[in-house]
Amino acid sequence: MLPDSLTQGQYDTVYNLLSLVIASQLFTALFLVISQPRVLARYRQALVVSAVVCGIAAYHYFRIFSSFKEAYVSDAVGGQGVYTQAVGRSFNEGYRYVDWLLTVPLLLVELVVVLTLARKLQASLLRRLIPAAALMIALGYPGEISSDNPTRHLFGLLSTVPFLYILYVLFVELTRSLDRQPAAVRRTVSRMRILLVATWGVYPIAYLVPLLGFDGADAWVGKQAGYSVADILAKALYGLLIFRIARMKSFADDPAFGAVEGSHEEARESLTAAPVEAVRVKN
Amino acid sequence: MLPDSLTQGQYDTVYNLLSLVIASQLFTALFLVISQPRVLARYRQALVVSAVVCGIAAYHYFRIFSSFKEAYVSDAVGGQGVYTQAVGRSFNEGYRYVDWLLTVPLLLVELVVVLTLARKLQASLLRRLIPAAALMIALGYPGEISSDNPTRHLFGLLSTVPFLYILYVLFVELTRSLDRQPAAVRRTVSRMRILLVATWGVYPIAYLVPLLGFDGADAWVGKQAGYSVADILAKALYGLLIFRIARMKSFADDPAFGAVEGSHEEARESLTAAPVEAVRVKN
Repeated sequence: MLPDSLTQGQYDTVYNLLSLVIASQLFTALFLVISQPRVLARYRQALVVSAVVCGIAAYHYFRIFSSFKEAYVSDAVGGQGVYTQAVGRSFNEGYRYVDWLLTVPLLLVELVVVLTLARKLQASLLRRLIPAAALMIALGYPGEISSDNPTRHLFGLLSTVPFLYILYVLFVELTRSLDRQPAAVRRTVSRMRILLVATWGVYPIAYLVPLLGFDGADAWVGKQAGYSVADILAKALYGLLIFRIARMKSFADDPAFGAVEGSHEEARESLTAAPVEAVRVKN
Repeated sequence: MLPDSLTQGQYDTVYNLLSLVIASQLFTALFLVISQPRVLARYRQALVVSAVVCGIAAYHYFRIFSSFKEAYVSDAVGGQGVYTQAVGRSFNEGYRYVDWLLTVPLLLVELVVVLTLARKLQASLLRRLIPAAALMIALGYPGEISSDNPTRHLFGLLSTVPFLYILYVLFVELTRSLDRQPAAVRRTVSRMRILLVATWGVYPIAYLVPLLGFDGADAWVGKQAGYSVADILAKALYGLLIFRIARMKSFADDPAFGAVEGSHEEARESLTAAPVEAVRVKN
């Protein structure tokens, strides 16, 4: 429930966090689009999907930001005041679910696509992960908008079933197919799965806050902070890790590309060796 | 603290400076994106990061600009009037901290990435510089929003510790690894570090203004001017120096690229040498 009033500090904290999310998502999306030539063509699909996810999140946070700004009126003059709910306005938490419904399945697509698995295996993983992710979000929504605890419990529990299935696919089935990946990629994928579980874990915790008896303005601010930080980690940081995997795999697939792109001395040496000699022969 | 009222001149000064920062950051970002083909592929990552930093700053200055515009109402008719604080609005200084939290670590990433050091050394520098930079900003925020001086002192002091650590890494550790850089690059890196210390030094001075007993509208306008100019130097000018280093290193790595790209007579001569001879033979 939206608190009746917020202190200046509480209001500013939510306000600045929402803006932080906009900046993080928007510029991660731009970074991923601009950085397309930094990976081999076969990994650009994963970067495009990551950029789209961050772009969708930026759009929804622009909406959430406006919705929050309009939901309160202040008696502040200058820097300090009390914020009370504006009459005729409400804060629309639904934007988050619309966002997740689109982005959470796409986050799993990013991970599977960047691994460039065999065609059949990739299709099989996506056929199961995408519907499970969409179902998980769709089942959370009726609980989120409900004001009675039994309904919240029920849908929270139902939503956990597809979540556990996703974890099973990622940690058991996907692991079997990681053998053929370079060691550094295996390590990064492991780290990404842990990031995914850790950040996705924030959402049910924030969802359960009202059930745990926490209430009032501080609990609400905490929930907004939790969702915001989790969205930065699960989308922007996650997208940058996808980029990192795509770079590592590009360099492993094509050492010549690594030599041209590599920002490292070893790469430079291997690149310049040939042209320098060619010049010498000419002279 | 936001002054109760501003004269037309004070209001216009802040207004125009904020707009100057938007123009500087936005077009430096565009310049860096458009100029990607002007450096070798391995230096483009550094340019993308620089462009993202300027883009993030432009976003936040758009926000700061709107926030400032909304914070005051004027009794002006035509060009002259007195600006007094608008009821129900506040000027959100928090945008600056949100901006720095994202951009200051990235400024250090730019510097390290453009040097194309050995992979291990680069990873080790980034692993220490990025958290130190984020910690420095995060520790400044509680002091900035606090209205009592002891709290301001305490967090100002705490924030200095990671700042000194960053200086140690940049001036002692990084210097050791500059031996293998071309002489012109070493000179530019030295100049960048001085720019970095000089501009980053403006921030603690602006932060300390309230502690030094300065107060009132002029002090506040001075603080906004200090932050604005420092942000132009530390991000836009700094990004252009990164571009300069990337150009110099590109030319040093690949003389043929330098001959095609170089806007200097020597380069032009080396390029035209061959065709001129060919023409002579023909005649």
